[in-house]
Amino acid sequence: MTTLSTAPLRLANYRKKIEEALSQFTFSEQIPDLYDPMRYLLTLKAKRMRPTLVLIGLDVFHQPAEKGIKAACGIELFHNFTLMHDDIMDKAPTRRGMATVHEKWNQNVAILSGDAMFVLAHQCMAETPTVRLKEIMSMFQRTAIEVCEGQMLDMQFEQREEVLLEEYVNMIRLKTAVLLGCSLYIGAMLAEAESEDALILYAFGVKMGIAFQLQDDYLDAYGDSDKFGKQVGGDILSNKKTWLLLKAKALANPTQKALLSQLLQEKDGQYKVKAVLELYEQLNIKNLAEQEIQRLYQEALQSLQNLPSTTEKELLYAFAEYLMSRES
Amino acid sequence: MTTLSTAPLRLANYRKKIEEALSQFTFSEQIPDLYDPMRYLLTLKAKRMRPTLVLIGLDVFHQPAEKGIKAACGIELFHNFTLMHDDIMDKAPTRRGMATVHEKWNQNVAILSGDAMFVLAHQCMAETPTVRLKEIMSMFQRTAIEVCEGQMLDMQFEQREEVLLEEYVNMIRLKTAVLLGCSLYIGAMLAEAESEDALILYAFGVKMGIAFQLQDDYLDAYGDSDKFGKQVGGDILSNKKTWLLLKAKALANPTQKALLSQLLQEKDGQYKVKAVLELYEQLNIKNLAEQEIQRLYQEALQSLQNLPSTTEKELLYAFAEYLMSRES
Repeated sequence: MTTLSTAPLRLANYRKKIEEALSQFTFSEQIPDLYDPMRYLLTLKAKRMRPTLVLIGLDVFHQPAEKGIKAACGIELFHNFTLMHDDIMDKAPTRRGMATVHEKWNQNVAILSGDAMFVLAHQCMAETPTVRLKEIMSMFQRTAIEVCEGQMLDMQFEQREEVLLEEYVNMIRLKTAVLLGCSLYIGAMLAEAESEDALILYAFGVKMGIAFQLQDDYLDAYGDSDKFGKQVGGDILSNKKTWLLLKAKALANPTQKALLSQLLQEKDGQYKVKAVLELYEQLNIKNLAEQEIQRLYQEALQSLQNLPSTTEKELLYAFAEYLMSRES
Repeated sequence: MTTLSTAPLRLANYRKKIEEALSQFTFSEQIPDLYDPMRYLLTLKAKRMRPTLVLIGLDVFHQPAEKGIKAACGIELFHNFTLMHDDIMDKAPTRRGMATVHEKWNQNVAILSGDAMFVLAHQCMAETPTVRLKEIMSMFQRTAIEVCEGQMLDMQFEQREEVLLEEYVNMIRLKTAVLLGCSLYIGAMLAEAESEDALILYAFGVKMGIAFQLQDDYLDAYGDSDKFGKQVGGDILSNKKTWLLLKAKALANPTQKALLSQLLQEKDGQYKVKAVLELYEQLNIKNLAEQEIQRLYQEALQSLQNLPSTTEKELLYAFAEYLMSRES
């Protein structure tokens, strides 16, 4: 694995191109209630991870970012549409530290503005000039369906008593990971790469996406609260069915299981977090999570070896490193 | 204008083809909460006006219905997605005499199932084999945006004191009429018609769509309650800003305006309907509405004369007649 020193700079440059394109995206001036929420959500501070992946997909095949800017905007519009609707469903008051759309306007505005934003995302995709439009639209639509499925499973798991670890991993694959794979795939297709090579990038993106989400679970319990930006142990306090909790349930003996059930009812938050972390410690959960994240990360990197030797993998490595080294 | 006796039969046959295709549409068996609401909504009794228009668009250019079945399903899926979301926004308890999706399941299911149904609609469109895919997708997406805009305006008008007649007509154009035009346009494009001919059908559909909606307003006040299937005068009771009310406001002298304002506050429903209808009578609203509907209808029919003489206009006439002669 080689990470040349220019990679972070090039990634930052791609991100800048995306910010520029998004800021220049023209929404209709008519009917402000429909278009202002889109502008608002898009101007909130964000990593632009998904659209950057579109440009990386092009970069792998030595094609300029310009070819993917429109599709990258489409991916970011799609992602923000899902955030707008998810926030309604999750009754979330804030997003990226600011009021959510349904809070700032109202729920009907968030439903309808989200719907319209989804159409704009489709338009960006469809208007991208490419001979591979059919494959791109097909992947985009398949992914959009899967993201809906993932969100539905996520909501259902909250209501369910028992969720298996495999079910959880499948849920985060659908809800989060496939869109990362889709973004890379679209970039590769815009570069007119071979389908099989585009699918290698897709699989890499999905694997990194799952690792990314597991790391989120990990950081919630073991991150540095200053860097992580939210309360450490928040998932434990809210009984969120994370990888850590589900793994603990799977490994616990009857006594530990009984203790865990009891702790999930515990009202004293500080004690609850401390006791659950102690149980995790007994079950070696921290190490197991680290190993699982590393396994996915290594598998993802390994799969890149199947790409033709002419491809440029620098930014894929840099992106993976960026994802895995993050502390927030 | 010639309406041969086979036209109604052929229309019924097209509708049957659509019902068959919709009933055979395979939704995933996974995640019932996502897919059952789609099945449910699609099995409610419906006129299938929009998908039939896709097949009529093909028929005009002597092309078989089979070429448009998939796109017709896409149009009906799209229409039902908008119903699912509109019903949430309007807090509607029933749709076609049955519980709405957000009532039967819950609101989150209706949001998410609607989103996924919208993707399936896109998939149907994108998977239709045709050399005109780009134009079709472009029209479909433009129409989808306009339908969102129409719904937003409709909600805003409910909250506004004053709405101009032109604003109202623009709103129903966006919310209802453009999708009829879009359906015919797509049929014509699937038949590989000339763009200008497809646009003649589009304009015909939009005009008929506006006439259709004005007729809805008309029937609510002047229809036969047995045939209309809902309470006559319902719009008057709920102060709905229909063409009739807005026209009355536009024509009323100061005394009549004051009376109208007073009547909008009236609590005695029976008296309210009677008094508003009397005021409409004074202002000649019934005749004016009939004239406006007839004007749109005639203009729509007239515009068909610009189609090439080789085209088959029988079903367009039959459809227009069916729309205009309906009493419910």
